[in-house]
Amino acid sequence: MTGITSRGEKRLVLVSGRAHPALASAVAEELETELVPTTAYDFANGEIYVRFEESVRGSDAFVLQSHTAPINQWLMEQLLMVDALKRASAKRITVIAPFYPYARQDKKHKGREPISARFIADMFKTAGADRLMSVDLHAAQVQGFFNGPVDHLWAMPILTDYVRSRVDTSNVTVVSPDAGRIRVAEKWAEKLGGGPLAFVHKTRDITRPNQAVANRVVGEVEGRTCVLVDDLIDTGGTIAEAVKVVKAAGARDVIVAATHGVLSDPAAQRLSECGAREVVITDTLPIDVSKHFPQLTVLPIAPLLARAIRAVFDDGSVTSLFDGNA
Amino acid sequence: MTGITSRGEKRLVLVSGRAHPALASAVAEELETELVPTTAYDFANGEIYVRFEESVRGSDAFVLQSHTAPINQWLMEQLLMVDALKRASAKRITVIAPFYPYARQDKKHKGREPISARFIADMFKTAGADRLMSVDLHAAQVQGFFNGPVDHLWAMPILTDYVRSRVDTSNVTVVSPDAGRIRVAEKWAEKLGGGPLAFVHKTRDITRPNQAVANRVVGEVEGRTCVLVDDLIDTGGTIAEAVKVVKAAGARDVIVAATHGVLSDPAAQRLSECGAREVVITDTLPIDVSKHFPQLTVLPIAPLLARAIRAVFDDGSVTSLFDGNA
Amino acid sequence: MTGITSRGEKRLVLVSGRAHPALASAVAEELETELVPTTAYDFANGEIYVRFEESVRGSDAFVLQSHTAPINQWLMEQLLMVDALKRASAKRITVIAPFYPYARQDKKHKGREPISARFIADMFKTAGADRLMSVDLHAAQVQGFFNGPVDHLWAMPILTDYVRSRVDTSNVTVVSPDAGRIRVAEKWAEKLGGGPLAFVHKTRDITRPNQAVANRVVGEVEGRTCVLVDDLIDTGGTIAEAVKVVKAAGARDVIVAATHGVLSDPAAQRLSECGAREVVITDTLPIDVSKHFPQLTVLPIAPLLARAIRAVFDDGSVTSLFDGNA
Amino acid sequence: MTGITSRGEKRLVLVSGRAHPALASAVAEELETELVPTTAYDFANGEIYVRFEESVRGSDAFVLQSHTAPINQWLMEQLLMVDALKRASAKRITVIAPFYPYARQDKKHKGREPISARFIADMFKTAGADRLMSVDLHAAQVQGFFNGPVDHLWAMPILTDYVRSRVDTSNVTVVSPDAGRIRVAEKWAEKLGGGPLAFVHKTRDITRPNQAVANRVVGEVEGRTCVLVDDLIDTGGTIAEAVKVVKAAGARDVIVAATHGVLSDPAAQRLSECGAREVVITDTLPIDVSKHFPQLTVLPIAPLLARAIRAVFDDGSVTSLFDGNA
Amino acid sequence: MTGITSRGEKRLVLVSGRAHPALASAVAEELETELVPTTAYDFANGEIYVRFEESVRGSDAFVLQSHTAPINQWLMEQLLMVDALKRASAKRITVIAPFYPYARQDKKHKGREPISARFIADMFKTAGADRLMSVDLHAAQVQGFFNGPVDHLWAMPILTDYVRSRVDTSNVTVVSPDAGRIRVAEKWAEKLGGGPLAFVHKTRDITRPNQAVANRVVGEVEGRTCVLVDDLIDTGGTIAEAVKVVKAAGARDVIVAATHGVLSDPAAQRLSECGAREVVITDTLPIDVSKHFPQLTVLPIAPLLARAIRAVFDDGSVTSLFDGNA
Amino acid sequence: MTGITSRGEKRLVLVSGRAHPALASAVAEELETELVPTTAYDFANGEIYVRFEESVRGSDAFVLQSHTAPINQWLMEQLLMVDALKRASAKRITVIAPFYPYARQDKKHKGREPISARFIADMFKTAGADRLMSVDLHAAQVQGFFNGPVDHLWAMPILTDYVRSRVDTSNVTVVSPDAGRIRVAEKWAEKLGGGPLAFVHKTRDITRPNQAVANRVVGEVEGRTCVLVDDLIDTGGTIAEAVKVVKAAGARDVIVAATHGVLSDPAAQRLSECGAREVVITDTLPIDVSKHFPQLTVLPIAPLLARAIRAVFDDGSVTSLFDGNA
Repeated sequence: MTGITSRGEKRLVLVSGRAHPALASAVAEELETELVPTTAYDFANGEIYVRFEESVRGSDAFVLQSHTAPINQWLMEQLLMVDALKRASAKRITVIAPFYPYARQDKKHKGREPISARFIADMFKTAGADRLMSVDLHAAQVQGFFNGPVDHLWAMPILTDYVRSRVDTSNVTVVSPDAGRIRVAEKWAEKLGGGPLAFVHKTRDITRPNQAVANRVVGEVEGRTCVLVDDLIDTGGTIAEAVKVVKAAGARDVIVAATHGVLSDPAAQRLSECGAREVVITDTLPIDVSKHFPQLTVLPIAPLLARAIRAVFDDGSVTSLFDGNA
Repeated sequence: MTGITSRGEKRLVLVSGRAHPALASAVAEELETELVPTTAYDFANGEIYVRFEESVRGSDAFVLQSHTAPINQWLMEQLLMVDALKRASAKRITVIAPFYPYARQDKKHKGREPISARFIADMFKTAGADRLMSVDLHAAQVQGFFNGPVDHLWAMPILTDYVRSRVDTSNVTVVSPDAGRIRVAEKWAEKLGGGPLAFVHKTRDITRPNQAVANRVVGEVEGRTCVLVDDLIDTGGTIAEAVKVVKAAGARDVIVAATHGVLSDPAAQRLSECGAREVVITDTLPIDVSKHFPQLTVLPIAPLLARAIRAVFDDGSVTSLFDGNA
Repeated sequence: MTGITSRGEKRLVLVSGRAHPALASAVAEELETELVPTTAYDFANGEIYVRFEESVRGSDAFVLQSHTAPINQWLMEQLLMVDALKRASAKRITVIAPFYPYARQDKKHKGREPISARFIADMFKTAGADRLMSVDLHAAQVQGFFNGPVDHLWAMPILTDYVRSRVDTSNVTVVSPDAGRIRVAEKWAEKLGGGPLAFVHKTRDITRPNQAVANRVVGEVEGRTCVLVDDLIDTGGTIAEAVKVVKAAGARDVIVAATHGVLSDPAAQRLSECGAREVVITDTLPIDVSKHFPQLTVLPIAPLLARAIRAVFDDGSVTSLFDGNA
Repeated sequence: MTGITSRGEKRLVLVSGRAHPALASAVAEELETELVPTTAYDFANGEIYVRFEESVRGSDAFVLQSHTAPINQWLMEQLLMVDALKRASAKRITVIAPFYPYARQDKKHKGREPISARFIADMFKTAGADRLMSVDLHAAQVQGFFNGPVDHLWAMPILTDYVRSRVDTSNVTVVSPDAGRIRVAEKWAEKLGGGPLAFVHKTRDITRPNQAVANRVVGEVEGRTCVLVDDLIDTGGTIAEAVKVVKAAGARDVIVAATHGVLSDPAAQRLSECGAREVVITDTLPIDVSKHFPQLTVLPIAPLLARAIRAVFDDGSVTSLFDGNA
Repeated sequence: MTGITSRGEKRLVLVSGRAHPALASAVAEELETELVPTTAYDFANGEIYVRFEESVRGSDAFVLQSHTAPINQWLMEQLLMVDALKRASAKRITVIAPFYPYARQDKKHKGREPISARFIADMFKTAGADRLMSVDLHAAQVQGFFNGPVDHLWAMPILTDYVRSRVDTSNVTVVSPDAGRIRVAEKWAEKLGGGPLAFVHKTRDITRPNQAVANRVVGEVEGRTCVLVDDLIDTGGTIAEAVKVVKAAGARDVIVAATHGVLSDPAAQRLSECGAREVVITDTLPIDVSKHFPQLTVLPIAPLLARAIRAVFDDGSVTSLFDGNA
Repeated sequence: MTGITSRGEKRLVLVSGRAHPALASAVAEELETELVPTTAYDFANGEIYVRFEESVRGSDAFVLQSHTAPINQWLMEQLLMVDALKRASAKRITVIAPFYPYARQDKKHKGREPISARFIADMFKTAGADRLMSVDLHAAQVQGFFNGPVDHLWAMPILTDYVRSRVDTSNVTVVSPDAGRIRVAEKWAEKLGGGPLAFVHKTRDITRPNQAVANRVVGEVEGRTCVLVDDLIDTGGTIAEAVKVVKAAGARDVIVAATHGVLSDPAAQRLSECGAREVVITDTLPIDVSKHFPQLTVLPIAPLLARAIRAVFDDGSVTSLFDGNA
């Protein structure tokens, strides 16, 4: 047949935005490779410039960014990197957003709102992303916002392994800080040995009409070690309040666990003062020194990301990393 | 200026598939109009034929179908109707799916599953739908699966108004049949006056290893009138079991309420025998005579649909039908 | 250069819906491989669930379904399988629809009809199909409904080879059962040695105003072995009537040949009683035992499908399977 | 409510390419309006320039072009006009292609061909067309190539009305010039009173191996007035040959009728010398003076186009122009 | 005909992001209407929330944002507003970006860069924008980046009218600050009466190898009033240097004029000290008090935007606002 | 794992339209391969037919066409070839348009024009092109018109290398024939050693009102060797006039250099008589013998195209062919 033939080769490249360089380095190290040398800076008026200093033609490219504040800035940087990869003839582009931006705006709570989480997915697609990878989405339905493969990784095994080493599981009650997150707590309870479940119910106290909201614990917490779980901790208000309510209800001890440590002010202060014995998160988002406090434990997410990237590149199974469940 | 000018007119037309003619007639009646005469039948091999017997050119068309079994059949019929409207130059097409098909497959529970609810939204779009209207989506995130306006109607006010007339709200506990639906129960509790909340927790009973699952109620139900709420009742297994568990835990009385009465076999039997005083649903899906049982109450959904259709046609506010919340 | 390189591998996987398991097995056997283990069942309300039990990441996936009744059910199952493959990172997805569903609705016969065959093509695309493979499309233009490669296979050589062994070709007239299918008959005539061509003309008999339609044969059939050909046999009405008309016009013998045996009721009865010596079809659709009748011969289509799949996987030529004509 | 409100107005505008100015004028006259003043010329290297000299903002624009040779030139001109209308904020754009370009390339006849007719539809869409209008498509399936409304007009009533006035319908046989076009002939036969049908069968003459093809008439033509019908006449070879064969088979008289007079060389010569009494076409394509010959009759298509345009603009029914059949 | 008919009404609504409230108010005032009441704020982690407090259903919506720093923040806010309008059933959405963001990244200057200006256009489209409106694009080709109508407004008449009142046009030389912007200068020269043209040429001074760049004026500036023109002034480096070079070459006087006053630090200082008599800009971007300096003149852009919005809403001609040239 | 695995192979194929066979052969020869045997001809009415005579399944296909007059014809041929490749399962399709068609219509100069260059990019995409390759785009922004990778090659090094061998660079002034192309001239000046820059300024001569335009040189040309540069020469009017003006201003000698020799009539005559010592172009477009004239030098572009094709196929770097700048 006419033409020129040759054997092909696959090439994995990892590129990263500027939001969380420590995470990018850790992932590269786990993969035993280097990040593609990249230029990225802001022009005087805030427009971002990016360029890869090496050919990425034909590559299987993974673009990592951590969506911390200023979140729109880092989102835009990642999108421009995807556009640059597309125009530079990368063969396949996987966006890695360990903490999915705008994940909480996943529906219209009221009329005339955007559904921002869907729009984020569409922007990644428009820029040229073929695939997404993320960790512990606020709602699993967000997978369906992207028209293509989504590798939805679970940090829960990392967190439960750690927590199991810190408590007597026979005396644990898993607690959800509000009614909407009990499904997550239920999974935790199962992982920690099938103990009881509880949640904090916010009600309008009808006996005291001038006072807006009262929190009460539904479920058995007295004398128990409570593990308060959520997918993310932002300003820490709900969590800190839940710790207090649970302790007021007689809990012996409280550990807080969440995947994403957004930790917007005044989260550090609230969490350090709320009475929890320990607050366990991962480093999907950078934890600035100013956000550290004595009870905080940060578990590394890089090993999980690296294993998933490798499985994607090798056409292996990401699902098998989670006992067939992801 | 060159050309021919004329004053335009808007025309609302309502068309319907064959799944639930009673609902279609009721909506048309509420709107004080008629359904567009339509031919629809199956060929010998099961392929569907549809045709509108009247011009729909330039119209603001609403296509109603009720997604009952055989659900793929009725879905396909509605899609072909949308295609026919598009090709017949309808100006705007709104799909009305009071019970959104495949709504429960809204995420990958395990690897290598489809996200069917997203695919349904894409099919409506591909066929030519500009807008969707649905009632009480299983997960509100499904709104984000459609790339366009979604009128998400709430049947809850219809149900809570009715239930309020049947119970002493000062003694009510709202109960969720499982951990994943407590958010809905929480809204009900608020609507019914702020009473307590409970849910049924399914656990593996570790004391009896050969027995798979035990259900226990978390929350206060003893001596209270329990309102068990969900968005839909399919085979009724979860609900009927929850009624029994709640009663075993001392509930004085149980009312079951849900928007969508799927009532697949053996739901009628289970619900009639489970001990609930009353089971309240709406007619978003046709309730065959064979599915009737003494405790069943069916509330009409047509008035809500008609009001929403009219608001959409008149560029009014659908949100205002729900106190600004939808 | 930065990054990780490795040699790639191509992997063909074959998955199948539940409509025609015998065909799927036969194709797998011809390919000397196994079907990917797959879970597929219906929920109580008719919604379909599918899942692949093995990784398909990076694979060249072929999704076989046979579009027999209930056709919308099987169509939906195949579409959900495509969606699942796409989201599971299959590299390329080829839909195999040996009998293209809704192929006869390929144009608007009257105003305000859908063009269902186009919509089917768009649904496959929307679900994520990259390519289509089908056998003997009702109209070859349907290829153009899909925006991508279509492997249009011809079963005619299988059928003509068989028929040639059953008749004296020097005395054959090929007959089309109606005016719209003569092109197919013309190709048959050429393959069988260039004999005469005839067709059945349906007319309103103007001499007997109360009788709607009369059929008459146009062309030379007296004393000849007639081969009545069509792409498909559905209820068998047109074909059985044509057999009778041809025999009435003096044909010595009639053989019926068609690719797709839809055989909706009462096809088996009609065909067994119409006077044809033999009815030859392939098994693109499952032929239920209830549809068997003495004159029926079913030729296997699996070898053709398997050869085409292999050629697609190997970047060989499908066209060459048909002397450069497909 | 906030904002500025006003009553809208609809405005129909008609624009035309340079291929067939007489037709454009005739349509404008039938509509009792003027064409939008338009600049269109070729640059020295053949690139086309177009511009509308009047605002078309918010208009319902119809873009007429006649696809005569040089057909790629006129196609491109029309596409650029559509792009210009889109960017000039026309509200709705309908492409009018009385003779659909590349309509005969509606499928792959052999491997590795384009499906040009589909690509044409996609180009119109890409340029910005919302709707298509065409006359007597070569294959009705081409409607399905466009993802939107297609007004498929029929010139047959114009032609049959005329032919009926020129023949004794009780003695007419309608003849198709080849096996693939008998469906059209069948419709003609019905319109002309239900007479017999015939076609010309091209065969390889197996008795004389060195001679490629022999034509023979299948059906009853002796002593009858034959009406040879087709959708278009290009070089006239097939038609002229068919006239001769039919006359050789004893036809008393032959009239040729077709919608589209492509009349590429040497059609005029062939048709004038083939023995047909009359050749009837419409002016969907310009008939250059050099193409005229004594037996030629050209019927105007502008009244049909104008009525359809008006029906589209007024949201009337185009289908009703054809007894509900288009 | 079946259905409900009513006369429609058009409704213009103007919504605005938070970047430049003074401009939004001024445009609303010019239009004699009010901005739609809108909620917009940032969550603790920087995610933006927007909601319209009034129905926008069926409206012709214009979404104004001024793309000043932090530019990615304001861009995202506008995109989310577009998404919200789309999902709230606005009929048509026009994005107004007086200063088009990332306009200078309109091509790849080197390999592996994004083409950010194209990506911006695609994001507006993806969010749901039907149309764009912008002022004095850095390159007019950016119009072509958007697949739809772009109203490209010119501020030049506003600037030239003002400058004409400040200089003796018989002694003016129009100067471009670099070789790439002379086309703009040429248009200015024509508008100011056809005087001479000059530009600043940056060269590597080959006689002094260690010094990188020398600027020299090409064209006649000695003794003349020079008008230095550009589309935007960012940090002011190029412009300030050009003023000095022109004055060193003997210019009597220098006026600087540009449409967009980005004025990133240290623009104010540079411009106030460079020797220009006056610096004239418009307020397409907010000019913070800290950026004011004595020679600065800011002309209002709101009247132009309001006239264009009104023309778009009324299906009038935007082109006619610019003598048929835009 | 289930399935069939094999090692893949990459295959480059080169196909070409009929516009410039010499260039196609030269590129194939540089690549040391053959063109894929292809059938291409025109039907009687001007419709084009194309077909590849060999399988292209799975190939990395490059489709070369030279967009000379009749340009719409050759454009359409290339588009149909892309469609045929897509439908024949080519894996990746790169359009090579050395001279990008309609490149000069890259923006709306006035209202109600198309943006033809954008539309061309969209047509390539619609047909199925994954990538574009072109040489010296009229405006580099055209890269952004295509939603995918564009390899923008520079012929300037070929031209400057040649010109450097023909002049004394210490006495060169690079001249732009009009104000809009000075950026190109600036790059030339840098490449030729940093000499002065000039351009021709067209003005309305206000002292002689009846005479439309006067040209004057801005910059230093007296006694110097002037190199007049542009991206293309069409009818040669602007260039020939510029040569005369420059010579009238005292230039010692003039060389004209441009990438694309469109050379529409009467370019050859004008250029041969204008006084230029030499006119240097490349053969991106075929130079018909009738267009030759004594001062014309044509440099071959095939080596550049071949090197770029090879780099694309091998996942090498095209950027590196141009010192990292393309």
